[in-house]
Amino acid sequence: MPNATVLLKEPSPYGKLTTGNFEVRRSTKVPTEADLGPNQIAVHTRYISIDPYLRMRMSGTDGPYATGYRVGSPITSFGVGDVVASRHPDYPQGCQITTSANPWSTYAIYDLSDPQLVAALQLTKLEGPLADVPLNWHVGVLGMPSFTAWYGLLEIGKPKAGETLVVSAASGAVGQAVVQLGKSLGLRVVAAAGTDEKVAYLKDTLKADAAFNYKKVDDYTKTLKELCPKGIDIYFDNIGGEFLDAVLANVNRCARIAACGAISQYQKDEGQTYGVKNLMSVVGNEVTFQGFIILFHYQTHYVKFVEDITKRVKDGKFNYKLDITKGIENAPQTMVDMMEGRNFGKTVVEG
Amino acid sequence: MPNATVLLKEPSPYGKLTTGNFEVRRSTKVPTEADLGPNQIAVHTRYISIDPYLRMRMSGTDGPYATGYRVGSPITSFGVGDVVASRHPDYPQGCQITTSANPWSTYAIYDLSDPQLVAALQLTKLEGPLADVPLNWHVGVLGMPSFTAWYGLLEIGKPKAGETLVVSAASGAVGQAVVQLGKSLGLRVVAAAGTDEKVAYLKDTLKADAAFNYKKVDDYTKTLKELCPKGIDIYFDNIGGEFLDAVLANVNRCARIAACGAISQYQKDEGQTYGVKNLMSVVGNEVTFQGFIILFHYQTHYVKFVEDITKRVKDGKFNYKLDITKGIENAPQTMVDMMEGRNFGKTVVEG
Repeated sequence: MPNATVLLKEPSPYGKLTTGNFEVRRSTKVPTEADLGPNQIAVHTRYISIDPYLRMRMSGTDGPYATGYRVGSPITSFGVGDVVASRHPDYPQGCQITTSANPWSTYAIYDLSDPQLVAALQLTKLEGPLADVPLNWHVGVLGMPSFTAWYGLLEIGKPKAGETLVVSAASGAVGQAVVQLGKSLGLRVVAAAGTDEKVAYLKDTLKADAAFNYKKVDDYTKTLKELCPKGIDIYFDNIGGEFLDAVLANVNRCARIAACGAISQYQKDEGQTYGVKNLMSVVGNEVTFQGFIILFHYQTHYVKFVEDITKRVKDGKFNYKLDITKGIENAPQTMVDMMEGRNFGKTVVEG
Repeated sequence: MPNATVLLKEPSPYGKLTTGNFEVRRSTKVPTEADLGPNQIAVHTRYISIDPYLRMRMSGTDGPYATGYRVGSPITSFGVGDVVASRHPDYPQGCQITTSANPWSTYAIYDLSDPQLVAALQLTKLEGPLADVPLNWHVGVLGMPSFTAWYGLLEIGKPKAGETLVVSAASGAVGQAVVQLGKSLGLRVVAAAGTDEKVAYLKDTLKADAAFNYKKVDDYTKTLKELCPKGIDIYFDNIGGEFLDAVLANVNRCARIAACGAISQYQKDEGQTYGVKNLMSVVGNEVTFQGFIILFHYQTHYVKFVEDITKRVKDGKFNYKLDITKGIENAPQTMVDMMEGRNFGKTVVEG
């Protein structure tokens, strides 16, 4: 079994990420109990979640959105794995854990002496309902992006049946969940994605009322006007930029915009961030444009989310498409590809 | 007594407004009961309220924010006046009324046959507590901008004592009320205005904790960082544009922005609207950026506002500075001046 660890080599504050920003170290070492101090556990990474917000962490500097990775330190993200050796009684060998700070490493050692650190890592043993589902659900349908979709649509979007919902990056990790939740709530769902294959998936499998390939459209404002004849009531914003301006030109009074991310802007060169011009529409239409960071809402909402989504999936009413790449050593290329939209579904690397 | 009416001559969708966009018609005619049809009243305009949002109406086209004026039709705005002749039993000669659609005309005739139209004009007879205050309070401390301040700060700003509030255009019609309400609620108030005289008024009379002349500052972001050492919790946005970007660079987690207007953008040439770049701060800081149009909130909140503000003024705890110009025929120049910041206090024309 290859044993790889991915570290930050060269921070990338602007422009396109490349695999040269990462360093992959290999080793044949597999940790055993002899390598552990008191209260430490060794975990074999089974899946890591690769998400657009990590692009900001690759800047190497701390921002409000996320802390930057440090040169020479491992990249971390949400992940799930098997405890292969343990010196902590609550996390015996054979159990499984999930954490928001899983190193991109085939094996990782966690020190669980300090309960505050365990909380900060959001390290959770899979038991009860969490153990009762396929393992990759924890980086898939039960993962952070899916929770993001659920929280943003319900808590910020405040949907009412019959309203029109627009979703950008709609076949991605967050978008595909937003589309399906929107449909199940009786919304008219208009979805935008970047390939014809994704558009077909959105229409045929996820049953979006309308979907379009934004790369083949000249004028977002005109397209949204055509596809949303009653105007836009809710916009789930994953991309920011020019598309947001087009949405603002088509919103109804008291529209809600769940500001989740701005992937269209993350790889811009310095000083090239798109300036949003239609903010007077926020005033004139009494729009609520509200940002959120899902990490702050686990404690209050995650259990409710898990119950709700698990039921939906088991009822066969919820699809969740994963785009799985094998091998931690391939995580850098996988992330580069995702940032350029070459993923199809939620991006995951299998360790 | 001169009798003047101001009409739209040339719509101005972009750039600087000039008096050439208006036409002033003069007449010696004073309406009497003989000029009235059933249920009509003739009103002598006593004060009209001149406000930045009218700039958008001068475009001559309808937008979400407001309907455009029509070429050859009178300019209208909030106003208050004396009923000088009446054929409506509920509005006898000698009573006074306020309306949101007072023509810029020394005399105006209103048809009150249709109750829906009366409601649309927000035509209200001054009686009870509304008759118990100086007449110009209805375009001043009880007027739309003051109500805007009160609603936006309380309902959208959701202030908590000890928080930091930033107000732009702070000596204007809305701003001066926001500053004083903010102080009375125990906020640290940081105010921006465009002349040293206004800054002195904000500090000395309105007791802002800090105030600065934004025209004498090189870098808004740096100035706000210095004046708001604990970050910004609430921003009452009257101006939009570059200043908004600077605020977004200094907001705290869960900050609230009451998006009231964007006067810095109203006189831009076509295509020159400033693009706001720091919207990722809305996501990263979980900011709520919420627009509002005060006209929609009269029914639910105006009575509460009047009670609250009247008490504050009578307790001597609330100043409200008017900038009064005499003569309806001077309203065009007064509006042009206001748009360029040459007013000091709430702009009013006395009829």
